[in-house]
Amino acid sequence: MDTFDLIKGIVVETGSKIIYLVIDGLGGLPETEDGKSEMEKANIPNLDMLAAKSICGMIYPVMPGITPGSGPGHLSLFGYDPIKYSVGRGVLEALGIGHQLELSDVAVRMNFVTTDEDGVILDRRAGRMKTEECAELCRLLSEISINGVSIVVKPVMDYRAVMIMKGADLGDYVTDSDPQKNGIKPREIKALYPEAENLRTADIANEFVHKTQEILKERNSANMVVLRGFARYQKFPSMYEVYKLKAASIATYPMYRGVTGLIGMEILPTGDSLTDELNTLSENFDRYNFFYLHVKKADSAGEDGDFDRKIKVLEDVDKKIPFLMELKPDVIVVTGDHSTPSVLKSHSWHPVPLMIYSKWCGPDQVRKFSERDCTNGGLGHILAKQAMPIVMANALKLDKYGA
Amino acid sequence: MDTFDLIKGIVVETGSKIIYLVIDGLGGLPETEDGKSEMEKANIPNLDMLAAKSICGMIYPVMPGITPGSGPGHLSLFGYDPIKYSVGRGVLEALGIGHQLELSDVAVRMNFVTTDEDGVILDRRAGRMKTEECAELCRLLSEISINGVSIVVKPVMDYRAVMIMKGADLGDYVTDSDPQKNGIKPREIKALYPEAENLRTADIANEFVHKTQEILKERNSANMVVLRGFARYQKFPSMYEVYKLKAASIATYPMYRGVTGLIGMEILPTGDSLTDELNTLSENFDRYNFFYLHVKKADSAGEDGDFDRKIKVLEDVDKKIPFLMELKPDVIVVTGDHSTPSVLKSHSWHPVPLMIYSKWCGPDQVRKFSERDCTNGGLGHILAKQAMPIVMANALKLDKYGA
Repeated sequence: MDTFDLIKGIVVETGSKIIYLVIDGLGGLPETEDGKSEMEKANIPNLDMLAAKSICGMIYPVMPGITPGSGPGHLSLFGYDPIKYSVGRGVLEALGIGHQLELSDVAVRMNFVTTDEDGVILDRRAGRMKTEECAELCRLLSEISINGVSIVVKPVMDYRAVMIMKGADLGDYVTDSDPQKNGIKPREIKALYPEAENLRTADIANEFVHKTQEILKERNSANMVVLRGFARYQKFPSMYEVYKLKAASIATYPMYRGVTGLIGMEILPTGDSLTDELNTLSENFDRYNFFYLHVKKADSAGEDGDFDRKIKVLEDVDKKIPFLMELKPDVIVVTGDHSTPSVLKSHSWHPVPLMIYSKWCGPDQVRKFSERDCTNGGLGHILAKQAMPIVMANALKLDKYGA
Repeated sequence: MDTFDLIKGIVVETGSKIIYLVIDGLGGLPETEDGKSEMEKANIPNLDMLAAKSICGMIYPVMPGITPGSGPGHLSLFGYDPIKYSVGRGVLEALGIGHQLELSDVAVRMNFVTTDEDGVILDRRAGRMKTEECAELCRLLSEISINGVSIVVKPVMDYRAVMIMKGADLGDYVTDSDPQKNGIKPREIKALYPEAENLRTADIANEFVHKTQEILKERNSANMVVLRGFARYQKFPSMYEVYKLKAASIATYPMYRGVTGLIGMEILPTGDSLTDELNTLSENFDRYNFFYLHVKKADSAGEDGDFDRKIKVLEDVDKKIPFLMELKPDVIVVTGDHSTPSVLKSHSWHPVPLMIYSKWCGPDQVRKFSERDCTNGGLGHILAKQAMPIVMANALKLDKYGA
């Protein structure tokens, strides 16, 4: 029996409401050895006050030491084992540009490249081609259809694109053509297991690459493509199936709408700012009982290595906390999908602060919302996927297990 | 290799003695948002003193967020994975009234109900029938025997009873007849898997229900029964098999004697009070090397929502701690099988304080025995099933693993 089976056996559908605020890349590090992290430097009185009323802890997104991408970082927050429920690169690229995939579509990340006459890659970024040019080439390649498999090619940014194959019997157990360096030829795409039904997928993908060479041969910007991260689109068990939650997703970036759509959340249209997101939350508050609310900018500031801007984002979020409280949800969760320390300019493996507020949470001794304070929280250190049952329990949505 | 295999490979039988005190429903919550929990309010100087000499921590009975029943709550304390070693409802009901089950008996919870002439349930509690009437009807139904399967029906309380089927080839992979609401007919009992050998079990159970209607048709109090939670009685690996412990169980309530009997503890007859239990402990101290000592009343007070009475129970237990110390056991463990906060009037999901005292425990900085204090204990947050190897280690009953 896995955890989802256990949950399904004890879950009860109630009207109690949960707001799950995900501050992307929340956790950080001090700039100097004896300094304070972004969270410790930020003036966040509302988050501190909420932490004092909450039970706090630290979560490991995947497992100790593992730095997650956005897919596993998010899925684990909602209780999905990020190793069992993995989302392939191609699918995440498609979701990231807001492209609606259909069941069994196979998506793959594509780069435009330049090669010499022998097919050796000269530049696997095609001179950092402009996005407009990329979009035009994508339109040309979308004309391709092979043995009843239609191809859609969508621009992502610069030389980067996503290719989607639509047809029956396609699979993703195939190798990449992208050798990930210049000076050699792209590889032939092969089935990972000889007996795999998806030999067809490899043939079609190779044929596609061949056709792109014909179509692109007169272009100056790029004359070939390379493919990596074949991924077949599948639905995961929905939040309603597992938790009997009517779940809504409020996020400004397509990637996060896509990932939460994978688990059956309803994607609410919203604007570009946190204020827009909060208005969307408030307007829809009666219609759902679980709200995922995503703040992207903390991660962006961290990725840019901008320590002060990350502090500013946290302070902006802090000012909105009273607005969340006024809605009087039964549970408020605040955490991140991973850490993004400004000093690392990237996602990191560090555990992430978590607070769960409810009338029944059993507050601990944590009085400030930070990495070091939450280390002494009442939840201890848990895996991110273990948080969701605690959230559900605090909403009184779980019966007892066993007599 | 699972944990039991590992333990069996390194366990050594010694004379060292362990007292494992389980205060049922130990963990609590403050009555007000900024108040103190039952444990924090209680005047428990002996427990505090013992905590100061112990290594402390917090245990999750099943996993974070999951509220356990008494079965999984207890089994995990003794190192049994509460998901792998699950005890069905029917078995727990039978154990709860002190009925001795035999291997392969199938037990099931039974309600007396009233129906209209079409068999539609009017009241699935049969007007909260008196226990005396229930006992009389149970005697009538115990006359039933079907195809060599003899039936025993025992009263539990009010309209509640337990039915036990005794015979070869019986199983518990069958559905309930109890629809758990009024206004519809009881369901037919069916095998969960068509190929299950226990099709016979469903047939016999349906035949039993049919016969109860004949026997009860002249009664005013109830004219039918509904069944739920079929459970086949099986022994689990014993405490001696796994830990080489001669284990004794001292508990005032039949349920807890039953659950510990499942894992081969010897059930010592005792009286109704904690003083009786301690006398039993003292009288038998030379004969065993592991003593499970159960205090029920903390849970009962919590279930009744009586914050002050729960404090009083904790204070009563505290006064007995010197008595335990005087026996000079090698290890004293104090914890609970789950939390029962008075404000929730029920079992809850909150982690439970644990202390392990021995000469070798390595005391931490905890000076008070409470939820918030034990959060910062030297054991951290662990699953309840992980506690038992630590207890064994403190009794110097485990050799090293690996060369």
